[in-house]
Amino acid sequence: MKKSPRSLDLVLAFCCLAMLSATALREARAQSPAPAALEVPAKTVPVPADVSPQLQKIIGAPLRSNWDIHPKSGEEWKPVADAGAAALTKNVPGMIERLKVKVEKTNIDGVRAFIVTPETIAPENRNRQLIHMHGGCYVLNPGEAGLPEAIFMAGFGHIKVISVEYRMPPEAYFPAALDDGITVWKAALKSMDAKNMAIFGTSAGGALTLEMVLKAKELGLPVPGAIAPGTPMSDVTKVGDTFYTNAMLDNVLVSPNGFCDDGAKVYANGHDMKDPLLSPVYGDMKGFPPTILTSGTRDLLLSNTVRVHRKLRQAGVEATLQVYEGMSHAHYIRDDTAPETREVFEEIARFFDSHLGK
Amino acid sequence: MKKSPRSLDLVLAFCCLAMLSATALREARAQSPAPAALEVPAKTVPVPADVSPQLQKIIGAPLRSNWDIHPKSGEEWKPVADAGAAALTKNVPGMIERLKVKVEKTNIDGVRAFIVTPETIAPENRNRQLIHMHGGCYVLNPGEAGLPEAIFMAGFGHIKVISVEYRMPPEAYFPAALDDGITVWKAALKSMDAKNMAIFGTSAGGALTLEMVLKAKELGLPVPGAIAPGTPMSDVTKVGDTFYTNAMLDNVLVSPNGFCDDGAKVYANGHDMKDPLLSPVYGDMKGFPPTILTSGTRDLLLSNTVRVHRKLRQAGVEATLQVYEGMSHAHYIRDDTAPETREVFEEIARFFDSHLGK
Repeated sequence: MKKSPRSLDLVLAFCCLAMLSATALREARAQSPAPAALEVPAKTVPVPADVSPQLQKIIGAPLRSNWDIHPKSGEEWKPVADAGAAALTKNVPGMIERLKVKVEKTNIDGVRAFIVTPETIAPENRNRQLIHMHGGCYVLNPGEAGLPEAIFMAGFGHIKVISVEYRMPPEAYFPAALDDGITVWKAALKSMDAKNMAIFGTSAGGALTLEMVLKAKELGLPVPGAIAPGTPMSDVTKVGDTFYTNAMLDNVLVSPNGFCDDGAKVYANGHDMKDPLLSPVYGDMKGFPPTILTSGTRDLLLSNTVRVHRKLRQAGVEATLQVYEGMSHAHYIRDDTAPETREVFEEIARFFDSHLGK
Repeated sequence: MKKSPRSLDLVLAFCCLAMLSATALREARAQSPAPAALEVPAKTVPVPADVSPQLQKIIGAPLRSNWDIHPKSGEEWKPVADAGAAALTKNVPGMIERLKVKVEKTNIDGVRAFIVTPETIAPENRNRQLIHMHGGCYVLNPGEAGLPEAIFMAGFGHIKVISVEYRMPPEAYFPAALDDGITVWKAALKSMDAKNMAIFGTSAGGALTLEMVLKAKELGLPVPGAIAPGTPMSDVTKVGDTFYTNAMLDNVLVSPNGFCDDGAKVYANGHDMKDPLLSPVYGDMKGFPPTILTSGTRDLLLSNTVRVHRKLRQAGVEATLQVYEGMSHAHYIRDDTAPETREVFEEIARFFDSHLGK
């Protein structure tokens, strides 16, 4: 067999590779010490070309400048949350106008909430409603600052949404947010079949969505007809591959050692962070309703999203995963004019439509 | 309102953040220059704790040492492919034994192929069969080296598989691999309803799976009842966010400037790389059959997988995405003893079972 010297080099290189693969395979079956961590060199990552200009702007924004603040108590978080909310709330009137929804404050059995009603309710949604749990690491987005996702869901999905303004530190601690969600769920059950309702939310709201189903099962309450946890904080113990692979790439959460886990810790108030009511990926997902999960390729919580997906599938639950190109954590609740935002909420609306009772 | 100096710092930091977000939103709607790339610092990435020991070994293996070889012709690739195949083929008898399948060489209308038959065909699969297109950048894994995925699918899915040993450079160039797949598809149609058959494959085999459906549509042939493209090379023009975010993290493909795209370029033989028959993400996906896509959080082609998923959904196709924790490109066809490998193929088998005719 004739070979050029160059070809021989390549052959040798590939032989080495193939033997390494075979060796790796054999080693995988043998007892051995913990594998080494990977040293990843510095790199320059361009903004993807294959997303809308609006999403390019969101992806191209610099890393959140204050990602490594670490408020240590509910009292320290409160002014931070209020200041953030004051700024975010300014965007809400424009969203209400563009999405053509009406927002009313209400109180449901002692829990503060907003009713978000679209100008046009789709005929198939007349006897349906959704419960929304907002995000913000269990400490951020009080009041109207938690509304954007509820407005997008109501407007793009043409369906009524009840957005729960659950208690947060320093007003109350674990399990107050979950308790408030369950209070609203119990109230909703009085006037509508569980199968006609879904629960949804992003980040801490995605975790609360999962926690509400776990809690409903525990209490013997009916579970909703479907749920949509978006990039859920399903594991607050720093387990999850993309906590590390997407660190300093996700421009929202930035790092597993950032502000967000500190919020969860303050909310937990000394409670075991591995409790499924704080890290729902560890919960028993048998009997969960059909679930649609949303994340992005740069999301620090992509692993915590796909791990929930796998757990649901292993439990025999119908579960669908949507991962959007280039998105960091919860990028899809930023700009309602980005076509990807509409796509996310229309996917969820279609999923609800195919699984909820009428 | 009383605030401690520390709280005031936090408030100011969050105000800045919130205002930056609002500014980013406004800018997103305005004309503006291309957003800047992100400079990601070097980092240490641990092997995830939440996967099996077998998968930890595969994830913990060092980066493929010869990822940056660049053979420039079919003649240069041939000895590389042969050497790699010789080493990989050594694993095949063990796989055949563990998965309890029988492998027979055959020739279908001039195309080399293998028939992979499990010891036990599930009753629901008696009148079904699968067409397998192996991976390897259109230049690697000749002969039995392309069989592992076919063996896993037949064994875990209890279904008959025809694995196409399509022509590769230097024997033949674009569109030879696709033509061979279509020849086998046409032959299969003579004895079985298209709806009772699925096509599947990983990497270049995932791309070929998509290309075969595009070509079948073009030729007016019936399309299969379902397809399973695994981490498809759906875009060989280097477009895709995870080409960059997962560079030097995916220990199989390693870099968008690695060996694999060179293989595709040699196969393309001067043809436009953006042709949907080489970069199927640019194809028209209307009328595609139900599709299950598989990838991993470290996969260099995660974006090329999720982009196909979005394109399918936008075309109204039933499409489901599975993303596995910590996996690099095609890690799921390495070790049949890893529980995650079984999970991948059982998911695909379940998907086929719910969509194929009987």
